[in-house]
Amino acid sequence: MTADHPPSPPERRAGEAMTPDEFRRWGHEAVEWVARYLEVVEDLPVLSTVEPGEVRAGLPPSPPRWPEPFGDILADLDTAILPGITHWQSPNFFGYFQANSSGPSVIGELVAAGLGTQGMLWSTSPAATELETLMCDWLVELLDLPERFLSTGPGGGVIQDGASGATLCALLAARERVRGREGLDRLVAYTSPEAHSSVLKGARVIGLRDEQLQLVATDARHALDPAALAEAVRADVAAGRRPFFVAATVGTTSSHAIDPVAAMAEVAREADAWIHVDGAHAGAAAVCSELRFVNDGLELVDSYAFDPHKWLFTNMECDVMFVADRAPLLAALSVSPEYLRNQASDSGAVIDYRDWHLPLGRRFRALKLWFVLRSYGAEGLAAAVRSHVAWAQALAGWVADDARFELAAPAPLNLVCFRHRGGDDVNRELLARVNGTGRAFLTHTVLDGRFTLRMSVGQTTTRRHHVEATWRLIAELAPR
Amino acid sequence: MTADHPPSPPERRAGEAMTPDEFRRWGHEAVEWVARYLEVVEDLPVLSTVEPGEVRAGLPPSPPRWPEPFGDILADLDTAILPGITHWQSPNFFGYFQANSSGPSVIGELVAAGLGTQGMLWSTSPAATELETLMCDWLVELLDLPERFLSTGPGGGVIQDGASGATLCALLAARERVRGREGLDRLVAYTSPEAHSSVLKGARVIGLRDEQLQLVATDARHALDPAALAEAVRADVAAGRRPFFVAATVGTTSSHAIDPVAAMAEVAREADAWIHVDGAHAGAAAVCSELRFVNDGLELVDSYAFDPHKWLFTNMECDVMFVADRAPLLAALSVSPEYLRNQASDSGAVIDYRDWHLPLGRRFRALKLWFVLRSYGAEGLAAAVRSHVAWAQALAGWVADDARFELAAPAPLNLVCFRHRGGDDVNRELLARVNGTGRAFLTHTVLDGRFTLRMSVGQTTTRRHHVEATWRLIAELAPR
Repeated sequence: MTADHPPSPPERRAGEAMTPDEFRRWGHEAVEWVARYLEVVEDLPVLSTVEPGEVRAGLPPSPPRWPEPFGDILADLDTAILPGITHWQSPNFFGYFQANSSGPSVIGELVAAGLGTQGMLWSTSPAATELETLMCDWLVELLDLPERFLSTGPGGGVIQDGASGATLCALLAARERVRGREGLDRLVAYTSPEAHSSVLKGARVIGLRDEQLQLVATDARHALDPAALAEAVRADVAAGRRPFFVAATVGTTSSHAIDPVAAMAEVAREADAWIHVDGAHAGAAAVCSELRFVNDGLELVDSYAFDPHKWLFTNMECDVMFVADRAPLLAALSVSPEYLRNQASDSGAVIDYRDWHLPLGRRFRALKLWFVLRSYGAEGLAAAVRSHVAWAQALAGWVADDARFELAAPAPLNLVCFRHRGGDDVNRELLARVNGTGRAFLTHTVLDGRFTLRMSVGQTTTRRHHVEATWRLIAELAPR
Repeated sequence: MTADHPPSPPERRAGEAMTPDEFRRWGHEAVEWVARYLEVVEDLPVLSTVEPGEVRAGLPPSPPRWPEPFGDILADLDTAILPGITHWQSPNFFGYFQANSSGPSVIGELVAAGLGTQGMLWSTSPAATELETLMCDWLVELLDLPERFLSTGPGGGVIQDGASGATLCALLAARERVRGREGLDRLVAYTSPEAHSSVLKGARVIGLRDEQLQLVATDARHALDPAALAEAVRADVAAGRRPFFVAATVGTTSSHAIDPVAAMAEVAREADAWIHVDGAHAGAAAVCSELRFVNDGLELVDSYAFDPHKWLFTNMECDVMFVADRAPLLAALSVSPEYLRNQASDSGAVIDYRDWHLPLGRRFRALKLWFVLRSYGAEGLAAAVRSHVAWAQALAGWVADDARFELAAPAPLNLVCFRHRGGDDVNRELLARVNGTGRAFLTHTVLDGRFTLRMSVGQTTTRRHHVEATWRLIAELAPR
């Protein structure tokens, strides 16, 4: 694919690989490519079957010396890239938690990339900042979240890259609140063994040793036991340690367990510790009024995050983090060099989101969220999420009705955890066989020490018949 | 814009705001919108002139209940959003460091969003991982970087969200290397007062107190003085502290000063400290063989990062970070819960990039970089960067030839720092007047205690005549 000579016409101008007209031409081709992909993705094997090194082996080892025609590049998408894609946008994708998307979101990415803004400061694109603030406030209304998360008070929302980033920022704000008064070595954080790996990763990042993150016992439903939390806090205080952070999860990754947020918040309040709630996946359920139990206790917490890029039809990255009080967050994350000073920031009348997270530079992520929320409308979002939950509940029923299988955990929303009664090896083999067909993709976890299949029903184009067909496939491949 | 009733035909299906055909239609409209934007952006006022709150005031306070027609949304881009955009893609944008882009990169974002992969693990989209590894290796060749950064040895590259993230990861890897043997309180990091604010931010994040980041004296050219570094290290060791991290900058944000990397690496090596080089903006210059002085000393360092999203025609986010040894980085950032286990990872035969940075989820960022490197080719990239440098050098000449002005720092590449001899107030007023015309946008810094104008010549569509016109504007508005 690499030519040894400069291309003949059209002659390239230095600095511009495409004129606006060339962009128009190839942009249209790319839209067609994506539309065709969305049309055929259902029929592709969900999990890529390439071997390690296979994709790379199909590509030139060195960069080309001269420009290549854009048509060649698009053609290579089909031959070199597609075989190596695991199709997260397939309606038969039931693995992990989905990263669902939608046409309006993809178009939002296109427009945001075309504008090419860098919204680190209000002044560097006021619309990027103000639309982000408005979208966060819209979500407070849409999900019926506590008013303390509105930007009009001392709190507010910000778009983070993901729930891991939000957890890390919450840890930093929590540390900031006790710092100066306390040495880092005395701090203790608390979460459940079922919490996302990002809590441990974040704790390490901010300088805690692993033993400074206490994993509190869970109950039979894999939810944190608040009495055990209270006891752990008491013991740590008695031993001269300083509880400073509690992480609750609404919808754990393994089993969708829902920690008792209100009771945990009470313990945190008494200990003067920050409480953060990670609702990365399940939080989106609150678009349905009947599913707002996922919000229980949020009126008592310091920070909360969920990912529109998981279950709200918005491309990665798009996590929304809310804080009840933005002061500790900004105190932890503000560094103001001269070269970023400007009149608007100095006036204090604007938000500079660079002080709300780790990176300095910022893409215009709010744009795609605006496109999505308007294209669906509140009713459209609720209908879509409600369907996912209904189909998952139907699946849970089919599992319960098959004597070979058992549910491995309650299924409060759209994740169903189940296992064949034949033991770990049978389940491991069953998962491999199902995924090996290419007709569906699910993943596993370990619950109560046993290998467990997980099926998350939340892809944008998934319909009831996809869930049914996948269950039939599982039932067919499972030992009698 | 919010309707009180459900829309009449086309009826919406739950879960899908757009069919592939509707995506096709609106995707084409969006491509037209972006193409027209690129055609007219040159004539728009570069710095947005909206007042705080103005953008938000033009938008509905609440999310819509029912779906809105996509045509309405695109129309609102012109009326509600564009006035609030500061046009980073204007050829008259000379502020900060540019965040340049290109048609192939924008199309790459579109395709990556359409594929909607989540490449946290090799298995969750092998092509995303393998293309990323290949692009990092291509860049080693393209920039003539040390071979130790190739993925085929113990080192390798990874795409980070930005240089701030890369610096933070380098700090974490450095801390990991000494941890266990040393308490956090004894660690000392070193950089120059001219280093990017992310070094201080990163040091705070990993748990250091501000006094644990030593700001080492600079010379008359604003580059770190390696003798002062050696002296500071000696004094700290003598006082029982543990030097563990040195951050050098190639092309500081204020003035493009280039720290003496080789001499600093020597000091770091003797102290057994990690040395990271932040070449966020200037690193891209190495696409030109005659500008490879920006690579001096890199063969001696532990990690290096630069941003294709600044000066290599690739949309945000796209920073490339290289390490000579990936083991400490992975040791610092690996957390492996059961629900992410898979055969490929267990085999050790693949890279799982989630262990190379802070987030878990990953967009397919390598795709746009592949599109860019192929669309330009090595010669095209070199020609574009070479032109920027030539025009900046011409600008430096015009400044030097005008008796009212003086250069405030050497201009080794495409950033020119200068000031009117009339003092801070004159320069502050001059900057406001130039930016107030809307015909160009530049920013400022403070060098040697004096207010200084900065002009970074690196936007994709900037041509010599834009630089000339901006200099004429400055000269015209400046006091005689």
